[in-house]
Amino acid sequence: MLNETLSKIKPVDPQWYDLAQKRLDNLTKPLGSLGRLEEFARRLVAIFEDAMPSINKKAVFTFAGDHGVAEEGVSAYPKEVTSQMVFNFLRGGAGINVLARHAGADVVVIDIGVDHDFKDIEGLVHMKVLRGTKNFTKGPAMTREEALKCVETGIELANAYAKRGYRLFATGEMGIGNTTPSSAIAAVLTGRPVEEVTGRGTGIGDETLKRKIEVIKRGIEINSPDPSDPIDVLQKVGGAEIGGIAGLILGASANRIPVVIDGFISTAGALIAYKLKPETKDYMFAAHNSQEIGHKVILELMGLRPILDFDLRLGEGTGAALAMLMIEAGLKIYKEMATFQEAGVSNEIQN
Amino acid sequence: MLNETLSKIKPVDPQWYDLAQKRLDNLTKPLGSLGRLEEFARRLVAIFEDAMPSINKKAVFTFAGDHGVAEEGVSAYPKEVTSQMVFNFLRGGAGINVLARHAGADVVVIDIGVDHDFKDIEGLVHMKVLRGTKNFTKGPAMTREEALKCVETGIELANAYAKRGYRLFATGEMGIGNTTPSSAIAAVLTGRPVEEVTGRGTGIGDETLKRKIEVIKRGIEINSPDPSDPIDVLQKVGGAEIGGIAGLILGASANRIPVVIDGFISTAGALIAYKLKPETKDYMFAAHNSQEIGHKVILELMGLRPILDFDLRLGEGTGAALAMLMIEAGLKIYKEMATFQEAGVSNEIQN
Repeated sequence: MLNETLSKIKPVDPQWYDLAQKRLDNLTKPLGSLGRLEEFARRLVAIFEDAMPSINKKAVFTFAGDHGVAEEGVSAYPKEVTSQMVFNFLRGGAGINVLARHAGADVVVIDIGVDHDFKDIEGLVHMKVLRGTKNFTKGPAMTREEALKCVETGIELANAYAKRGYRLFATGEMGIGNTTPSSAIAAVLTGRPVEEVTGRGTGIGDETLKRKIEVIKRGIEINSPDPSDPIDVLQKVGGAEIGGIAGLILGASANRIPVVIDGFISTAGALIAYKLKPETKDYMFAAHNSQEIGHKVILELMGLRPILDFDLRLGEGTGAALAMLMIEAGLKIYKEMATFQEAGVSNEIQN
Repeated sequence: MLNETLSKIKPVDPQWYDLAQKRLDNLTKPLGSLGRLEEFARRLVAIFEDAMPSINKKAVFTFAGDHGVAEEGVSAYPKEVTSQMVFNFLRGGAGINVLARHAGADVVVIDIGVDHDFKDIEGLVHMKVLRGTKNFTKGPAMTREEALKCVETGIELANAYAKRGYRLFATGEMGIGNTTPSSAIAAVLTGRPVEEVTGRGTGIGDETLKRKIEVIKRGIEINSPDPSDPIDVLQKVGGAEIGGIAGLILGASANRIPVVIDGFISTAGALIAYKLKPETKDYMFAAHNSQEIGHKVILELMGLRPILDFDLRLGEGTGAALAMLMIEAGLKIYKEMATFQEAGVSNEIQN
């Protein structure tokens, strides 16, 4: 399934950018004066290969998973918070619920790896691959089969929601401790020192940050993940929700659906997708500039410029939901603004 | 009327920030993790002096005016574009129409100084103070009475829309040539050299930029506006729509209504309001980081951090309409997110 999906992912054809820009340059505004909104419009036209695309349905995919490495004391919050927050998502009380409602997007909450038995509770997408990863300071976080299954879970979701007519995806996650595997992935796949890609997560102090860096270094040393094999990295020092996000991005790209990448953890997932297939980058929008220091490093490697800069560090998909509103604004100016001819406005330029 | 309004403007009471932060800190998220969204919520609570405020109606005020100085060849577009764009606004085909619709805001288009007779055309707010300013390289742009009338026009609009239940305002403008008076105002009121606050407007080339800088210098030299008297500056080197914006901000502040300041020209208007009454700053939100170099200079002087950074340089209120969506997102997380208690989520922090 992974290989089939990878083979379907094609780079975006730049001729569509030119076609979109031609229309943008004929709208009643100075050339290029809508800046990044014009960029969003160009990219959507090229991704959809449609000169007048529509985005009817939007979804934020919030993958939840637990982390064995949390027992090393790398987070400010206890592990139970992962499952407690899943209940909060289902009741509509979390940040992502509020911001997705604001953006007119559905929230899809997926149990891909929570260490809790949710039974058959309604509203939750039950695709559990494992009950929390193993502590990666003592061995690999999961098996290669589990890592592949996580990625395929994301692909399946992308395929299913593409079929249902969703045209804009966003990634999100919940998992106490998950900036730790994200930093590990960033360090291995960018080649940067652990210190340069490890931050304070939900708000840890200096002592805990020091321990977190040591924990990540130990995990990398013990498991020696292979940087040329992204699935190996995901398996050994990653997490279930990060694999799900990587899969969702691969599936979105294969279905030619734009996908908004939330903050640091989502971007670690995006990096795995990118390393498997660099063309996925053409389908990604970077939602915002996270406060996690490793985030900028990954975005620079992939060549993505974040849309918002709001000092966010919540995750769940919150920044991505907000960015969706801005991406849609780009599409609307492209589709709804009058041209110079239609409006009878002079466009003779004196320079 | 101006003095009465100025006397009504009070600084925001910081106790309301603390009250709002207390609730924010009890919502199901790590402390401070929603960054600037939390700032927006705090500020709205303090402006409205209401622990659970609502924003039902929103309006973008797009003031249109012409500029005698346009005859010096400082713009890339001919002067007729101002009135042509007014017709475009009324038909709903301009950038501001599209983005205000996206944000759920009404667009109020005001003829405050266009050099065109719109007769009694419907949909336009007819408050013409003058038919274009005079060329300020040959004398003052307008009389002191006209400048005061422009400011009072903005105040009247703010009072009227406050009465009608509007709770969030945004500023916008249209006026071929109006970055030239804006740069002149910025130079006089910030004390910075003309070169440091003058940019390419709608997209002029090097030659025109050089001429524009000379034109502004000449205007300041001939008129010697008094930096300690903002109305004098507005009169001598300003514009009608800039005065209207200054008035709208003063009126908004007097009515305790938050006002989103669009780009460079709007911010020049905001600077006049700020110099008349620095407390207005408590009611302002800076929408975005314009590509005009003078913009940052004014924002820094007033201590405002822009919300978006989209390389916009269109004006009309387009950036402000987009920023409205982000400000409302801040209010929604504050009002709609569950608290730790409500959600049964642990908030014991381990640091």
